[in-house]
Amino acid sequence: MTNWKLTLEYDGTEFSGWQIQANARTVQEELERGLAQIAGSFVRVAGGGRTDTGVHATGQVVSMELEKRFQPEALKRSLNGVLPYDIAVLGAEVADPDFHARFSACARRYRYSIIQRPSAIGRQYSWMCFYPLDLTLLETCAARIIGEHDFMSFAKTGSETEHGLCRVTEAHWTGTKDGLEFTITANRFLYGMVRALVGTMVEVARGYRQPSDWTAIMEARERQAAGAAAPAHGLCLLAIQYDGITSPRRQNVES
Amino acid sequence: MTNWKLTLEYDGTEFSGWQIQANARTVQEELERGLAQIAGSFVRVAGGGRTDTGVHATGQVVSMELEKRFQPEALKRSLNGVLPYDIAVLGAEVADPDFHARFSACARRYRYSIIQRPSAIGRQYSWMCFYPLDLTLLETCAARIIGEHDFMSFAKTGSETEHGLCRVTEAHWTGTKDGLEFTITANRFLYGMVRALVGTMVEVARGYRQPSDWTAIMEARERQAAGAAAPAHGLCLLAIQYDGITSPRRQNVES
Repeated sequence: MTNWKLTLEYDGTEFSGWQIQANARTVQEELERGLAQIAGSFVRVAGGGRTDTGVHATGQVVSMELEKRFQPEALKRSLNGVLPYDIAVLGAEVADPDFHARFSACARRYRYSIIQRPSAIGRQYSWMCFYPLDLTLLETCAARIIGEHDFMSFAKTGSETEHGLCRVTEAHWTGTKDGLEFTITANRFLYGMVRALVGTMVEVARGYRQPSDWTAIMEARERQAAGAAAPAHGLCLLAIQYDGITSPRRQNVES
Repeated sequence: MTNWKLTLEYDGTEFSGWQIQANARTVQEELERGLAQIAGSFVRVAGGGRTDTGVHATGQVVSMELEKRFQPEALKRSLNGVLPYDIAVLGAEVADPDFHARFSACARRYRYSIIQRPSAIGRQYSWMCFYPLDLTLLETCAARIIGEHDFMSFAKTGSETEHGLCRVTEAHWTGTKDGLEFTITANRFLYGMVRALVGTMVEVARGYRQPSDWTAIMEARERQAAGAAAPAHGLCLLAIQYDGITSPRRQNVES
C-alpha cells in the first residue's frame, strides 16, 4: 500500500459539501467514484477540511492509500480524466505512511470574498453586498478574533464539538478592485464558523451592531448572540498547513 | 424619448449568444424582457458587439430609447433587480440622441484566456490547454495580424459579410499566473474571427503549423485554410470604443 497526498480544487456550487451523505452529490463521493475507476477497487479518502454545501476550495488536501502503483503525474492525469469538471486535481504526491490529511493538519486557511457591485462573471465565488461597509470597523472586529478564543457563538447550532477553543493566527480584511476579502487561518474551525464571523462583522460594518458588542458576543457562547451567516458561495478553502513542508512527520511505520 | 447607453457584464455560459433567436435563451431577449417590466412597454435594444453562443462580456454596450423617465442610478438598480443572475448592468447613462451602440462604435476589444493546468474554479472562463505552447511563436503570429488585412480565412463559413477587411490596432499575448491571454482590438470583427485566430495560433504554437504558413493562410481567404476554432467559453468582449469619451459622434441623422 502507498499513502498518497492529493491537492484538490473544486467549485462548490453544485456540491452538498465535501463529506459523503445519502442522496446528495458530494466531493468525497465523486472523488471516491473516480478513484475506484482508475484503482480498480474501492478507496476511502480523508479530507483535510470538511467544506460545507456551496463552499469552494483551491487547496483542499486529501489522503488515501492505494494498492495499485502509480507515477504521481500519471495518477494526477488519470484522475483528472475521470473526475467531473467541477473537481480538479492540482497535485499528487507520495506521502509518509503516517500522513493523514485531517489529523496531521496543523492549520487551515480560508478566504471570504465580497463584491460590492453587480456582477455576472464570478458571481458564484463572491457575496454581492451593495450596502456600504466600513473597512475600519471590519478590521477592528478582525483584530479581536486573533489569538486563542472560544468561538462557540459562531458554531452552527446542533454541531457536535467537544469544545469551542480555536487558535486564530491570521484574520484580516483587504480591499480588492470591486470589493473586500477576509482571510483567516486557525488550527481548527467550528462548523459554520467563518460564515458566522463574516456575517457578524458585516453587521458591525453596516452599523447594525457596535464594535464594542464583540466581547459580549464572544462570551455568550451561543449562536443566537452572533449575526446571520454570510452565504456559502463567498467562502473558499485556500490551503491546509502541515508540519514540515508538505506534511509527513517521519515515523517508523510500515507502508 | 431619451436615448440611453448601458454597459453590461454577462456570463455567456447559459446563453445562445447576444442576438434574439427563436427557441433559445439570448442576452438580448432577457434584457428586453427586463426592460419591458420596468418601462411598461416593449423596448428594442441594440448591442455593440454580437457575441456568439457561450462567449462572455464584461463591457458589452447597449443603446435604446425609453419613453418613461429614469434617473440613471435608478434605471441601473431597477434593471439589476429584474435581470437574471448571469446579466449585470454596470452602468446606465443618457446618451446623445444619435448614439447607436453598434453603428457609432469605432472599435471592439476582446480577450481570449487559456489556462494551462486542470482547473475547477473559473473553468467556464478559460480554455484548458494542457499541451505546451510556445509564447514566442504565438507572439510572432499576433504581430502578423496587426494592421489592415482581409480576414476571410477566419470568418465562419456561411457568415454573410460584404468584405473581410478589418483594421487590427492591438494583438498580443501575455503570460498569466496559470496560462496565457490574447488581447485584440479591431474596428470590426468577422463572425467567429477571434476564436479562429486563437485556434490557428495555438496550432502554430504546438508545432502543427509553421509561422511561415501564416501569409498563405491569410491569403487563402477560405476558412479551411485556417485552424480549428478555439472554444467559445475562453472568449470575452472587454470593451467597445466610441469616438469621444462615452461615444456619440454627432451626425445630422434623425433618431
